[in-house]
Amino acid sequence: MFPPAMAGYDRAITIFSPEGKIYQVEYAGEAVKRGWPTVGVKCKAGVVLTAEKRKISALFDSSSLEKIYLIDEHVAASPSGLLADARILIDYARDVALSHRFIYDEPIDVEFLTKAVCNLKQQYTQFGGARPFGVALLIAGVDRHGARLYQTDPSGVYIGYFATAIGAESGTITEFLEKNYKFDMEMGECIELALKALASAVEITDSANVEVAYATIEEKKMRKMSQDEVASLLTKLGLLKKS
Amino acid sequence: MFPPAMAGYDRAITIFSPEGKIYQVEYAGEAVKRGWPTVGVKCKAGVVLTAEKRKISALFDSSSLEKIYLIDEHVAASPSGLLADARILIDYARDVALSHRFIYDEPIDVEFLTKAVCNLKQQYTQFGGARPFGVALLIAGVDRHGARLYQTDPSGVYIGYFATAIGAESGTITEFLEKNYKFDMEMGECIELALKALASAVEITDSANVEVAYATIEEKKMRKMSQDEVASLLTKLGLLKKS
Amino acid sequence: MFPPAMAGYDRAITIFSPEGKIYQVEYAGEAVKRGWPTVGVKCKAGVVLTAEKRKISALFDSSSLEKIYLIDEHVAASPSGLLADARILIDYARDVALSHRFIYDEPIDVEFLTKAVCNLKQQYTQFGGARPFGVALLIAGVDRHGARLYQTDPSGVYIGYFATAIGAESGTITEFLEKNYKFDMEMGECIELALKALASAVEITDSANVEVAYATIEEKKMRKMSQDEVASLLTKLGLLKKS
Amino acid sequence: MFPPAMAGYDRAITIFSPEGKIYQVEYAGEAVKRGWPTVGVKCKAGVVLTAEKRKISALFDSSSLEKIYLIDEHVAASPSGLLADARILIDYARDVALSHRFIYDEPIDVEFLTKAVCNLKQQYTQFGGARPFGVALLIAGVDRHGARLYQTDPSGVYIGYFATAIGAESGTITEFLEKNYKFDMEMGECIELALKALASAVEITDSANVEVAYATIEEKKMRKMSQDEVASLLTKLGLLKKS
Amino acid sequence: MFPPAMAGYDRAITIFSPEGKIYQVEYAGEAVKRGWPTVGVKCKAGVVLTAEKRKISALFDSSSLEKIYLIDEHVAASPSGLLADARILIDYARDVALSHRFIYDEPIDVEFLTKAVCNLKQQYTQFGGARPFGVALLIAGVDRHGARLYQTDPSGVYIGYFATAIGAESGTITEFLEKNYKFDMEMGECIELALKALASAVEITDSANVEVAYATIEEKKMRKMSQDEVASLLTKLGLLKKS
Amino acid sequence: MFPPAMAGYDRAITIFSPEGKIYQVEYAGEAVKRGWPTVGVKCKAGVVLTAEKRKISALFDSSSLEKIYLIDEHVAASPSGLLADARILIDYARDVALSHRFIYDEPIDVEFLTKAVCNLKQQYTQFGGARPFGVALLIAGVDRHGARLYQTDPSGVYIGYFATAIGAESGTITEFLEKNYKFDMEMGECIELALKALASAVEITDSANVEVAYATIEEKKMRKMSQDEVASLLTKLGLLKKS
Amino acid sequence: MFPPAMAGYDRAITIFSPEGKIYQVEYAGEAVKRGWPTVGVKCKAGVVLTAEKRKISALFDSSSLEKIYLIDEHVAASPSGLLADARILIDYARDVALSHRFIYDEPIDVEFLTKAVCNLKQQYTQFGGARPFGVALLIAGVDRHGARLYQTDPSGVYIGYFATAIGAESGTITEFLEKNYKFDMEMGECIELALKALASAVEITDSANVEVAYATIEEKKMRKMSQDEVASLLTKLGLLKKS
Repeated sequence: MFPPAMAGYDRAITIFSPEGKIYQVEYAGEAVKRGWPTVGVKCKAGVVLTAEKRKISALFDSSSLEKIYLIDEHVAASPSGLLADARILIDYARDVALSHRFIYDEPIDVEFLTKAVCNLKQQYTQFGGARPFGVALLIAGVDRHGARLYQTDPSGVYIGYFATAIGAESGTITEFLEKNYKFDMEMGECIELALKALASAVEITDSANVEVAYATIEEKKMRKMSQDEVASLLTKLGLLKKS
Repeated sequence: MFPPAMAGYDRAITIFSPEGKIYQVEYAGEAVKRGWPTVGVKCKAGVVLTAEKRKISALFDSSSLEKIYLIDEHVAASPSGLLADARILIDYARDVALSHRFIYDEPIDVEFLTKAVCNLKQQYTQFGGARPFGVALLIAGVDRHGARLYQTDPSGVYIGYFATAIGAESGTITEFLEKNYKFDMEMGECIELALKALASAVEITDSANVEVAYATIEEKKMRKMSQDEVASLLTKLGLLKKS
Repeated sequence: MFPPAMAGYDRAITIFSPEGKIYQVEYAGEAVKRGWPTVGVKCKAGVVLTAEKRKISALFDSSSLEKIYLIDEHVAASPSGLLADARILIDYARDVALSHRFIYDEPIDVEFLTKAVCNLKQQYTQFGGARPFGVALLIAGVDRHGARLYQTDPSGVYIGYFATAIGAESGTITEFLEKNYKFDMEMGECIELALKALASAVEITDSANVEVAYATIEEKKMRKMSQDEVASLLTKLGLLKKS
Repeated sequence: MFPPAMAGYDRAITIFSPEGKIYQVEYAGEAVKRGWPTVGVKCKAGVVLTAEKRKISALFDSSSLEKIYLIDEHVAASPSGLLADARILIDYARDVALSHRFIYDEPIDVEFLTKAVCNLKQQYTQFGGARPFGVALLIAGVDRHGARLYQTDPSGVYIGYFATAIGAESGTITEFLEKNYKFDMEMGECIELALKALASAVEITDSANVEVAYATIEEKKMRKMSQDEVASLLTKLGLLKKS
Repeated sequence: MFPPAMAGYDRAITIFSPEGKIYQVEYAGEAVKRGWPTVGVKCKAGVVLTAEKRKISALFDSSSLEKIYLIDEHVAASPSGLLADARILIDYARDVALSHRFIYDEPIDVEFLTKAVCNLKQQYTQFGGARPFGVALLIAGVDRHGARLYQTDPSGVYIGYFATAIGAESGTITEFLEKNYKFDMEMGECIELALKALASAVEITDSANVEVAYATIEEKKMRKMSQDEVASLLTKLGLLKKS
Repeated sequence: MFPPAMAGYDRAITIFSPEGKIYQVEYAGEAVKRGWPTVGVKCKAGVVLTAEKRKISALFDSSSLEKIYLIDEHVAASPSGLLADARILIDYARDVALSHRFIYDEPIDVEFLTKAVCNLKQQYTQFGGARPFGVALLIAGVDRHGARLYQTDPSGVYIGYFATAIGAESGTITEFLEKNYKFDMEMGECIELALKALASAVEITDSANVEVAYATIEEKKMRKMSQDEVASLLTKLGLLKKS
Repeated sequence: MFPPAMAGYDRAITIFSPEGKIYQVEYAGEAVKRGWPTVGVKCKAGVVLTAEKRKISALFDSSSLEKIYLIDEHVAASPSGLLADARILIDYARDVALSHRFIYDEPIDVEFLTKAVCNLKQQYTQFGGARPFGVALLIAGVDRHGARLYQTDPSGVYIGYFATAIGAESGTITEFLEKNYKFDMEMGECIELALKALASAVEITDSANVEVAYATIEEKKMRKMSQDEVASLLTKLGLLKKS
């Protein structure tokens, strides 16, 4: 048997390999694995996302770059992978959510939104002439079914988790989460667990490079913490390293 | 003669091999064989589907993922293979069923629905620029002709069975069914046979990872069992293993 | 000279080989040769089709699968080759026949119908971006010109025969027909000849796996025999083997 | 220099070879050379076409297959090469002739008709995404300019002849024609010459396998001989061999 | 450096070679060089075209084939190269000339017409999916600017000449012209020069195989000589050889 | 493992490499690195762009070529890379900014404008049939959020910086900026820093080859310095070398 | 590293090489270098274009071929490279200029016109399915900004010059210009410089093969010199060689 590179099974999304794999979709997953990490945790009280923005240069203006995007009042998303691809999907998600409010006059269900985004992703894994989206998204929110947390991948699959991570070091972070997760947490505990999980894998040296967003089941509002809030929380938890 | 990999007959769905095979469609079948197993059984009393959801992570929220989808009041479908592809076909099937009710004011025949889904699949095996759907579906329901159970494959072929299985370990399950199947079963026996067949090949350690849906000829309604019902049935049958 | 595989003449329907052959169309013919056999015979009294459905599994529901399709009141067709492709052509033939009745208020001529189906097939042998239909059809019927029996192949050619067979073992069946055929047969003799020809090449162990349809010149109606009729005929002719 | 097969100049109609040849069009010509032969002869009295239908099987129904097609009252065509391709061109020619009658209320000139068919053929030799028509046609008729006989080839070229042949053995037939042709023939002599030319290359064992059509300058009607007429003519000329 | 065949620069019109050549266009020029020769000469009195039609078979009906086409009352064109391609361009030229008359109620300028034809040719040298026209045209006529003679090639370039030739043996013919040309000729001398130039390279054995068309500046009408006129002129000039 | 050149992962933007990279986008980045350098700096007082135009010939008319383009009253952009590509993006940016003013009657936010340009760039990295834009842009301006400075790259990613450089020698310039940057600068200091940074990497011999544009937070107007202003500033700073 | 020919980076305009080059565009530049030379010079008094038409045959009618094209009253263009491509761009430029007059009732700015032509060129360097234009243009004119002279290349870049040359021997001509150019010339001197520059590289043996067009700042009219004017000027300057 040839390796896929020689046999050419990995040259197009319109080609299955003899094992039934679509290598281009799997390679797109590699772009995700090299992305900045993002963590999501849900509990009985709500759901939280936290993400790292790497200091790519001393003169990088971290305030100019978002890593967690509000999609609608009650739902947010955070990508890992190709940032330009992510932007396209975030815009698409916002359009879907806005249309839903406009047509039905109510917030969109988080799963319904996730499915719409993933159906778009799926199209890019079946038809030639384009490449798959090289990006995974954590989509988190609170709707009439409670707290929701979905992980989507470049193939267009989405799966619900109690806690999960994508991007670089996601293995380490997931391991931390599996050891320390419990469903019965208050919102504060839940946020702390997410930050600790992130810090278990990446060294946080500047609070400006961390974003946090959460929503409680009571409020059903996704809010992003201010940089000051993040800074004091990181300090309180002793997660801020001197670089 | 070259193996298909070297001769390139397996690089596109628009190419027949010298033996008249379309290798890309056969490779798509490999994606099905690696999917989570699904079992379908019909009897004089009705028809049942049961499927496994694998625990892909300790923090996986199994309630967020469906393996058996209700298509209409009287019919359900359960896929094996690429989950993102399956979603597209399930949505398509629901559209077809809904349109039928809207236009004719009566439930769609199960075979007619199956044929519509398979005609879509066939298109993806004849025209270039896309790949076949990497998914098989069991479609089960009760209509004016009685209980119906169809297995569809990536080529767009569908065939009726009294009992069948798709996905990983489907060989073992089918063997079990062939040994134990009889047409004269009540609904309860039929459901039990399906669960036992599933358990013959996969170890069930959490009732939350098993779904069951059935329809009786009298009621012509497909209903999904609650998780509690599934749990007590598995316990009663002694099919629940400690992991 | 290279074999076509090395020279690549067999990679697309838009390429002639140096001998003027379109290899992809010939390869599609191989899919036909691997299909379940179908037999057609016409005589002074009418025309008959008979076909085998193979028992692909012990739990296969043979009643769920048709091998001979009624196209209109006076004409039927039976395919060999890729079943999903056949379905598309059968649907197309039904559309053509129905439109003809609707527009001209009379049954379509069998040859005109056959030509329409074959013109569609031809398109798929001349234009890139799709593959030929991997299916042959026997089309049989009675119209104002009398009994008609056409064999179509993947290239879009159709030819009239007094008796013919397609699919696996068609060589053996044709040989049997050539030895035993005469034009002056009554309908009953004609049906028996067709069944004997089929049985000359395949072992019939279950009457449920054989379909028969015939039309007489007087009635101009194509009717499919019930399973009971087939069973008693096979028994009477001693063609039913114990498996 | 490479042979065209290695250099790939013969893989597409959109590629000229270094000598300015389009090999795919030349290969299409090979399909013509393997076709059943057709002969055309014109004289001062009119024009005749005659063609062979080969007995491809003992049970072949030769009456079901035409080799000479009436296009309009005054013109006929006979193909050699891929029969399914021929059918498409014949239908096209009939459409063109019919439209002409409808719009101008007069019979179409034979050359104008021939040019329309050949312009269609030319398109298939210049644009990618399809293959050339693998068929040559003799188009014969009588119009206001007198008797006309054109030979068309897959490249879209048409050329007028006094007498010519296409298909298998056309070399032998043409040689016979060159030796025996004179312009000053009556219709009867002309038909006999055509049949003798055909018989010079192929053994005629069944009059049902030969078709003849002719038109005289006076009548301007193309008529196909009945099978009886053909049979008695072949017998009279001693051209019918016992097989 | 590779020869273009190995490096593949000659496989598409959308590819420049490293020297800035488009080989496919140059190869199309080879088809022109293998075409039957055509000669054009202009002088103070007018312009003439003369062309050879080769006797491709003893039974070839040379009256059925034109080599010089009237485009409009005042302009004619004569091609060398692929005849089917030429026909497309001739039809196009006639459309352009006719539209011009219709819209402006005056004869089209010969250069404007030539440019329109060459712009069409150019398109086929820049866009993929088709091949260049394998044909050159001499376009000759008389308009308000006087006598005009243009040579077009497959690249879409056109250039004016006092006298020129295209097709097989055009080198020999051009040499003859260069030696014998003078601008101050009467129409008769000009026609004779053209015929002599043609005869300098090809043996004329049948006056039916030569065409002549000319236009004088006074009349501004392009007229084709009758076969009798051509015959007597060839005889008078002693250019007719016994074959 | 093969280098990407041999494995072909770098032949199309629709192909991911096994590491999840899109090589064609990375190669487009090389065109940027060979472009003339451009520098951007923002501070508490505003934002400045400065760029070099290389003297490509002694008779080059530097006044005919812009390197910094005004997009709207409050925003400018300066490209490095393929100049023809840059022009397309600049025109697009101007359209977007103008439409915004027309629809909302207010200046467009700099980030919103940047995102629109980058979304266009992203499209050219996902769909086949075109290549990515081989150009990076610095987009600078002052809006209701203050001074803004974004760097965009061929992948469609944009990132905010306090100071940055693109094009040839951007590494040297960035190093200079990192050593000397502080946020608390007046506009004058900021402009001087930008010019010194540019001069740290390229020898300025003619003030006509340097462009400067800046905007202060108070005025919110982007203005380009006249050539005289640039000349006197360069002289004052001692940055003008004799060539 | 492979040479581009082996690695295939030079096979399409949709492929960047690892150095960020688009080889097909560079190869198109080679077609320009093989074109007949064109010279442009601007001065305080105006702008001039002069170009050579090579005597490609003794019977070539040089008056039938333009090398300098008037685009509008105040602007002209002269190409080097593929002449058929040039014609397309010249027509396009005339359309743009005419539309501008029609819509705004004023002459188009020379740079705006140049940009329009170059934007069209750029499209052919980014999208597949066509090749770049193998032609460079000098565009010269006088508008409200004064005398303008732009050189465009196949990539779609345009740059202003005081004096420049394109086509064969442009290196020699440019060298001559650099040595002898000064801005303070009257129109006459400017024209003479341009002719001398041309003559420095090519031997002028026939004044009919040289074209000159110029515009003064006062008149803002581009006028082409008559052949007589050119002849006497060449004679006066002693630039006419006996061949």
